[in-house]
Amino acid sequence: MKILISGATGFIGKHLTKALTKKGVEVYIVTTSTNKVITLPSKRVHHYKDTLSLIDFMKENRPDGVIHLASMFLTSHTSSQVDELMKANIALGASLLEASQVTSVPWFINTGTFTQHYQNKHYSPVNLYSATKQAFQDIAQYYSENTNLTVVTLKLFDTFGEEDTRPKVFALWTKIANTNEPLLMSPGKQIIDMNYVGNVVDAYLHMAKLLAKKDRTSHNGKNYLVTQGERMTLQDLAKLFETTTKKKLPIVWGGRPYRDKEVMKPWDKDTILPGWKPKVSLAKAIRLLFT
Amino acid sequence: MKILISGATGFIGKHLTKALTKKGVEVYIVTTSTNKVITLPSKRVHHYKDTLSLIDFMKENRPDGVIHLASMFLTSHTSSQVDELMKANIALGASLLEASQVTSVPWFINTGTFTQHYQNKHYSPVNLYSATKQAFQDIAQYYSENTNLTVVTLKLFDTFGEEDTRPKVFALWTKIANTNEPLLMSPGKQIIDMNYVGNVVDAYLHMAKLLAKKDRTSHNGKNYLVTQGERMTLQDLAKLFETTTKKKLPIVWGGRPYRDKEVMKPWDKDTILPGWKPKVSLAKAIRLLFT
Repeated sequence: MKILISGATGFIGKHLTKALTKKGVEVYIVTTSTNKVITLPSKRVHHYKDTLSLIDFMKENRPDGVIHLASMFLTSHTSSQVDELMKANIALGASLLEASQVTSVPWFINTGTFTQHYQNKHYSPVNLYSATKQAFQDIAQYYSENTNLTVVTLKLFDTFGEEDTRPKVFALWTKIANTNEPLLMSPGKQIIDMNYVGNVVDAYLHMAKLLAKKDRTSHNGKNYLVTQGERMTLQDLAKLFETTTKKKLPIVWGGRPYRDKEVMKPWDKDTILPGWKPKVSLAKAIRLLFT
Repeated sequence: MKILISGATGFIGKHLTKALTKKGVEVYIVTTSTNKVITLPSKRVHHYKDTLSLIDFMKENRPDGVIHLASMFLTSHTSSQVDELMKANIALGASLLEASQVTSVPWFINTGTFTQHYQNKHYSPVNLYSATKQAFQDIAQYYSENTNLTVVTLKLFDTFGEEDTRPKVFALWTKIANTNEPLLMSPGKQIIDMNYVGNVVDAYLHMAKLLAKKDRTSHNGKNYLVTQGERMTLQDLAKLFETTTKKKLPIVWGGRPYRDKEVMKPWDKDTILPGWKPKVSLAKAIRLLFT
């Protein structure tokens, strides 16, 4: 089996590439990165330029499916980042869809985010990044409705795991647990759906398995939630972190206000990816990573 | 008053630019066209490159509002047109929104199309062009919900009028009425909302007037229909053309099948632009143009 991945140098992409390779899948990647972070043979790597050259690459390699993870993530943007956001988060994906269609790739897994759904609305973007994710889904819907390509979107929440270089909450907490320096946080009543990356990778593998079957079109156009299934407030997450790591977190709750468009309750109006369940609990993942 | 227009070299844009200029409005334009079709002083014309240079242009000229008409229209696309579609129909508009926001432009009129709504659905794109229109609306919604910019979308149907160089139905009919050559058409039961360009231009002027008022934010995020208010089947439209022009149309109804995604009933689930009505009836416009 051959799978083409975009975003293979990102947090989830790295883990997924490793997992697929381990399973004997031939991984091909499309990237905008010029870093030599990729350990694949160079003939398996396509440096994205435009639709036509991507089509050539895919004609040569004929993947059995595409997993689209690439995106430029920004909690807030500056004017100089707008062009790049549109290119990275919409144009690249559109090229991938078009190339998948014309080279008769049977399926395409897209990646969505809960921040497309401020206040649990069908669409209300928290930031411009989230708007580009929604915009791309509209482009994907064209291919889903009008071509033979089966398109599915996996909707992700917060993620954490090994080799996470992003400045996320567990990294901050690990630091202050050691230095004992007080950390000002929001009141902490927002509900968090924190997902262990191993479970998220499993979800992509499971989705790919479903799409490799003959009845793949039954999933066409669907959005599936990839949830840890252990939603709790940020305060309760801190408590879980404390009891699991047996460390005290010097957090000052309410020391800073909520973010401008803080998601208080993550999106829950799609169905959970059928037949998949997170194997690693939050407590277990925290123990694995931080003790 | 200063208004910045994109798509000023297009069919509606040309008419709108003329009408605004007649009213004493200073028109500024953003264009991707390299043709010297524009009769404005060159300092009022910006050749689009990226967001930052557009911001510079708008800082210099400080428009009171933006009317976004620019788009690359294609009933169907080829792979080599995908990149250009994304750039022309999403990235350019995103630059305009961002530049409007950072230069404190109070309002922005976007242009939508009934082909975003196959089978009168909230979203089901007839073609990739329509998908890019929907995608851009998602980007616009970010600015509408998260910034001071008031964003409104006028949703257009079929249009016709003076100096129309597009190969549309009235042009075909005028030709066959003279040559008497039989024209194979679909069965002709699809409902058409054919809009005279003078009325459409009026709608933009009316919208701009509403947005120049202090209560402009009451329109923020709204989609308004610009409808001729004389919906009829294509067959009935042909009859109206015949009686008005006193010519016989040698049409062979059913001589070819409906288009792949023919819109049989145009979108009607938004409200009509409040306070506006088409001044010129279909019969009057046909008389004006084709007799």
